[in-house]
Amino acid sequence: MSKVDIKSIAKALNLSKSTVSRAFQSNSDINANTRSRILAYANEVNYRPNHYASNLREQKSKTIAVVVPELENNYFTQIIKGAEQIAKEAGYHTLVYATDDNVCKEREFVTSISNGKVDGVLMSVVGEGHDHSYLFNIDLVKMPIVFFDRLYDDVAIPGITTDDYQSSFEATEHLIQEGCKSIAFLVIDKDHSIGKERCMGYTDALKKHQLPVREELIVNCSNSYTENFVIITDLLTTDKPDAVFASVERLAFSTYYVCNHLGVSIPDQVKVVAFSSLQIAELLSPPLSTIVQPAEQIGREAARLLLKNLKNPNLTPSTDQIVLKSELKIRKSSQG
Amino acid sequence: MSKVDIKSIAKALNLSKSTVSRAFQSNSDINANTRSRILAYANEVNYRPNHYASNLREQKSKTIAVVVPELENNYFTQIIKGAEQIAKEAGYHTLVYATDDNVCKEREFVTSISNGKVDGVLMSVVGEGHDHSYLFNIDLVKMPIVFFDRLYDDVAIPGITTDDYQSSFEATEHLIQEGCKSIAFLVIDKDHSIGKERCMGYTDALKKHQLPVREELIVNCSNSYTENFVIITDLLTTDKPDAVFASVERLAFSTYYVCNHLGVSIPDQVKVVAFSSLQIAELLSPPLSTIVQPAEQIGREAARLLLKNLKNPNLTPSTDQIVLKSELKIRKSSQG
Repeated sequence: MSKVDIKSIAKALNLSKSTVSRAFQSNSDINANTRSRILAYANEVNYRPNHYASNLREQKSKTIAVVVPELENNYFTQIIKGAEQIAKEAGYHTLVYATDDNVCKEREFVTSISNGKVDGVLMSVVGEGHDHSYLFNIDLVKMPIVFFDRLYDDVAIPGITTDDYQSSFEATEHLIQEGCKSIAFLVIDKDHSIGKERCMGYTDALKKHQLPVREELIVNCSNSYTENFVIITDLLTTDKPDAVFASVERLAFSTYYVCNHLGVSIPDQVKVVAFSSLQIAELLSPPLSTIVQPAEQIGREAARLLLKNLKNPNLTPSTDQIVLKSELKIRKSSQG
Repeated sequence: MSKVDIKSIAKALNLSKSTVSRAFQSNSDINANTRSRILAYANEVNYRPNHYASNLREQKSKTIAVVVPELENNYFTQIIKGAEQIAKEAGYHTLVYATDDNVCKEREFVTSISNGKVDGVLMSVVGEGHDHSYLFNIDLVKMPIVFFDRLYDDVAIPGITTDDYQSSFEATEHLIQEGCKSIAFLVIDKDHSIGKERCMGYTDALKKHQLPVREELIVNCSNSYTENFVIITDLLTTDKPDAVFASVERLAFSTYYVCNHLGVSIPDQVKVVAFSSLQIAELLSPPLSTIVQPAEQIGREAARLLLKNLKNPNLTPSTDQIVLKSELKIRKSSQG
């Protein structure tokens, strides 16, 4: 087969090379019918224009990156789905990168793409207390960043978060209204902004209802199912709380496993509520009460904000902070 | 702050620029202590070498891409996790791209990265019957590809799959041994290789046990929960099968929803088995019997095969086909 290029396509269709070339450039001035004809023929002969050569001219990769701590989490995959939807509508590819909650991986990756490999980044950061000064070296006009879910307060970067304090407060109040008096709060990193906000919502709700804030009921867990099994078994056998509020989905799953193992009945002996994006929460035994963050919407809003900054590179980048509302879905695990 | 570069680091540490430069190159000849000293200082002053400039010299991006049909699926996120683990050990970044089961997105993405943007690709392809001739234009020596899960038979590309026929046969036989006589088989795309293999395992098990293969019990579903709800409701009320074998996880969830809605008891009235990587299958009501594909292992093996081809670019690329075994985990949904 002879080489297929702009020249051979132009010859085959009896058009000029410049016309054919323009058919592959967005926003170029060309008759719509002619363009369709060229694209149809190019498709037929399996010709793809050199994406990078043309992007180099436009100085655009037409790609955004979404950086998440982990992929094995419905919350993040739903956010990615929302972001992809908006990116696709605007003609962008979306690449995903997982940091494993490792700040070195975050730094290395974000720095490595900051030279034009992607046009912009949506990012849920690894967390506070880590050196993230590398962000001060990123040219945010050349590669705008939008945070979602977790953010660094000290960098002027726009972000989308949810009302963690308020929804945590409501969930705790719901458990109190169900008659619970010793509510355990499970968290993975107490000192992290999200852990802190959620913990404050929990303690403030206790205080409002004149219940004591007991340090032993605020339990630091880990990302390991094995470790959490031990920690939660210890909690349920020693402190015997009448409710468990899991600030992270996997801690609710661990609580279910421990209750099954110990023969502790949910909700009769222990009520359970969790932050969770699990779409089959109502298929669990018993159906799990969840605080559902609007994950897809977070992804969509974050992508919109990024595209806004990408489209207007000459304007001062927006540093908007948008706070979305989560929804408390009460099911059997926390009732009766 | 003055600019931090190789020159300023060399000056600060009283070393030559060439020594400092070599500290950032893998495999370069430099005293280990000197390298540590340089890297520690570079870290302190937050200096990162220009990754791409040095990669350009090495002609490597040190990045692999994993292409999956969707991310909202535990099976694929576990595969990615396994692949990332191996890639990371070898010093590679892993980028993830979801095709939404759209062959145009697949083609456009794979073609767009084939000019050195990534070093290699792991890919679960969109499916048969689509024009995937673009793959013949990819230089597989410059950018090796390894298929996993789904593959195109007509391209000489190595792949990792699982024993779908055999595990489907076993699951069907298990249902027959539990006394089921009219077993429905739910599939998303009957004509797709995976659907076909699984369907053949199902029909062959029926035949072995002298049970009729009834066309109305082989049901084509879709990726939409709403549509599947209607389809499965119709199946359970019209044909009244005594078992449902879901060839895809989400079809098992839909079956659970429909049974809850109709008041049909699992497993008393309908037994359920599904291909599923859901890690909390035993927390469902009732616990779901699953055929578990070794997802993380698939990812690890695929990445190993890719790295093998990357490390030996002068050898004829391996075109190995590896078949891994899935495991049938029998739980309450299919017993008694």
